[in-house]
Amino acid sequence: MRLDTLHPSLTDPTLAALGFLNEVMGRFPDAISFAPGAPHVSFVDDVDIAAHLELFTAYLVRERGLRPEQAGRLLREYGPSRGIINDLVAAALHTDYGLRVAPDDLVITAGCQEAMLLAARALCAGPEDVLGLVTPAFVGMLGAARVLDVPTVGIGDGGTGADLAALRRECARLRAEGRRLRALYVAPDFANPSGTLMSLATRHELLALARQEDIVLLEDIAYGFTASDEGMLPPLKRLDGDSGQVIMLGTFAKLCLPGARVGFVVADQPVTGPEGTSEPLARHLAALKTMVTVNTSPLGQALVGGMLLAHGGSLTGLGRERARLYRRNLHLLLDELDQQVAGLAGVSYNRPGGGFFVRLRLPVRADDALLELSATKYGVLWTPMASFHLDDSGDHEIRLSCSYLEPAEIVEGVRRLAALLSAVV
Amino acid sequence: MRLDTLHPSLTDPTLAALGFLNEVMGRFPDAISFAPGAPHVSFVDDVDIAAHLELFTAYLVRERGLRPEQAGRLLREYGPSRGIINDLVAAALHTDYGLRVAPDDLVITAGCQEAMLLAARALCAGPEDVLGLVTPAFVGMLGAARVLDVPTVGIGDGGTGADLAALRRECARLRAEGRRLRALYVAPDFANPSGTLMSLATRHELLALARQEDIVLLEDIAYGFTASDEGMLPPLKRLDGDSGQVIMLGTFAKLCLPGARVGFVVADQPVTGPEGTSEPLARHLAALKTMVTVNTSPLGQALVGGMLLAHGGSLTGLGRERARLYRRNLHLLLDELDQQVAGLAGVSYNRPGGGFFVRLRLPVRADDALLELSATKYGVLWTPMASFHLDDSGDHEIRLSCSYLEPAEIVEGVRRLAALLSAVV
Repeated sequence: MRLDTLHPSLTDPTLAALGFLNEVMGRFPDAISFAPGAPHVSFVDDVDIAAHLELFTAYLVRERGLRPEQAGRLLREYGPSRGIINDLVAAALHTDYGLRVAPDDLVITAGCQEAMLLAARALCAGPEDVLGLVTPAFVGMLGAARVLDVPTVGIGDGGTGADLAALRRECARLRAEGRRLRALYVAPDFANPSGTLMSLATRHELLALARQEDIVLLEDIAYGFTASDEGMLPPLKRLDGDSGQVIMLGTFAKLCLPGARVGFVVADQPVTGPEGTSEPLARHLAALKTMVTVNTSPLGQALVGGMLLAHGGSLTGLGRERARLYRRNLHLLLDELDQQVAGLAGVSYNRPGGGFFVRLRLPVRADDALLELSATKYGVLWTPMASFHLDDSGDHEIRLSCSYLEPAEIVEGVRRLAALLSAVV
Repeated sequence: MRLDTLHPSLTDPTLAALGFLNEVMGRFPDAISFAPGAPHVSFVDDVDIAAHLELFTAYLVRERGLRPEQAGRLLREYGPSRGIINDLVAAALHTDYGLRVAPDDLVITAGCQEAMLLAARALCAGPEDVLGLVTPAFVGMLGAARVLDVPTVGIGDGGTGADLAALRRECARLRAEGRRLRALYVAPDFANPSGTLMSLATRHELLALARQEDIVLLEDIAYGFTASDEGMLPPLKRLDGDSGQVIMLGTFAKLCLPGARVGFVVADQPVTGPEGTSEPLARHLAALKTMVTVNTSPLGQALVGGMLLAHGGSLTGLGRERARLYRRNLHLLLDELDQQVAGLAGVSYNRPGGGFFVRLRLPVRADDALLELSATKYGVLWTPMASFHLDDSGDHEIRLSCSYLEPAEIVEGVRRLAALLSAVV
């Protein structure tokens, strides 16, 4: 078989970049790595899987009136495509964000990645429907679009979370071509990879523009939980009220365990059928999901359900202790950058108040060759930002992630990074 | 939102049919249902999840030299997109089928559904690449094609597993249009929904034709394990040897637990890149998978790994006790049909030697209205075959599944079915 006879997504730079990164980390296991956006091991090691499965099955018996063997089967058999923990997640979204959504307005997905794929697939019907991404953007959204042959455009984050003037121009340009910006992927809370927090004003303005241009906002809330109590802003989905302009995408990888592979999508938009029938978009996404993964592992869902129950049914509750550690790491990373990197000519970085990531701008190209040098000679890894952009504006940027490291590793890692940068800038 | 502005797959009859079936079963919980192709509860209830997770982590420590906390993390963290039980599955395929594949030639998927989606996506690069399905075909393969906008054609199973003359004609017709039959989905072993077993002669002829026309065969082995020892035929993948014409698709839903949501794809075809590099197709499928579900829940994989280890690392070993029960049920179903249905004018059915399914042909249309009547007045459910075909040739056919029922239910269910058929034929 020749690679150029296979689907174009397989040779897309997005996939190639990911492949390179996965390999480089395996090749330099002893390097200090600012690359992975994975949860800290202290929240991974101590999860008692069996105990949480027990907690969830006890809940099924107590609250849903199932007999014990029925509860056991719910974890073990095929299950509804929409999921089995929708009630718990809907209740958590109400407790944490004041959202009023019904269990039927949600689909529990095989991680947030599947949620992105389903939303993009349902909304983008053909080549005239374009998916926008606020860039730099999580590479998974771009990848899902590539797999589905959905055309994409990038909109810069403008430092405030979204460049609204650019968004307006892009809508006009597409309209002139007989196309339209169907949806816009945006992560308002300490976005991966930029760390940018969208201001409250920008949230309101973005919603107003989305209504005006009829753009569906795909709001990824992955890192919202890392905000301090005073730094937490309401999600777009909450600010939107009932106008139906926002689909919310979430993951339990950071709040529970990545190994559960559980995410969710909130899509309460009424969809009108040919005979005037109306169902929430989530029902259609659930139908679509039967053709992608059938249903999300009920075992993984039960683990997440048990962990939610153990934390008062709240995402914020699940995230509180985690958020403290991540903020500690982030502050330490910024302090160390201030001391060791800030003075270097042409190097700049942002100062996120939460999330896992800091965005650094270098005066040199942050390409694979620089990463290779960094790994071999300086023993430090990071993520080039080029693949998070749809143009070349990320060629001089790198992402530093602090979630997976110990404080001493952060200090030593920045020292090594400073040594690299001193040598090349 | 209007449904007709969303992706066409959402209004495809395939999805609508599935929706109807899911609903009808919920609406008549007391009916005897020949509909679900789910494993019997006796193989579901007694699976000790925690014990099998333990067994797998002990294996990781003993055989892969991991420290206990590393083993625990492998189940809990993100993991390689290709999977973490590839070695066990590769060894089982060697033990059971004599296949020689490396762990890197496999991807562990979120059920067989994702395996089908990945294979169809990688192989079908554009509108000129057509996916063939031996019909009647499992609806999941057709659905995956719809989600990806991959064009499809149906090839009848001709009672022998594949109508080779029709296949040859279809290849010629597509070639004349400047298109090609890129791949053919086929389930040679007691296919869902037909129950047809492809003869050894047809297997060899199909392989020869596939080589001649350069068609990749997507071989679904889901029900192979239900064969008696003397009734088991070698998979196409084994017969193919090294010619690389076959991609094998498998599921652990029937052998372990549906709730694990674990399947696999064997794709050892060398793919040549632009600089002459060569990697197995499975590596590309794993890269594609990062954009669909990132990785398959390692928790589900660990459960499957533990169950494999508990059964001598063999799929056949895992399936032996199960196969006995399913053959008992199938023989009982056929006996009851012989006694109660065989005499009815215009009714006929096949006599599979394994699998979960019997295919009945009726002299009346087997549509939603008949199913509704069957459920409300006669208390028996079955699956209309129309949605498993790409033309109208299944309009008079139904599928009966015997895997989920107790013997007394099979007897009573056939009695009810006979009453329905006596009334309408």
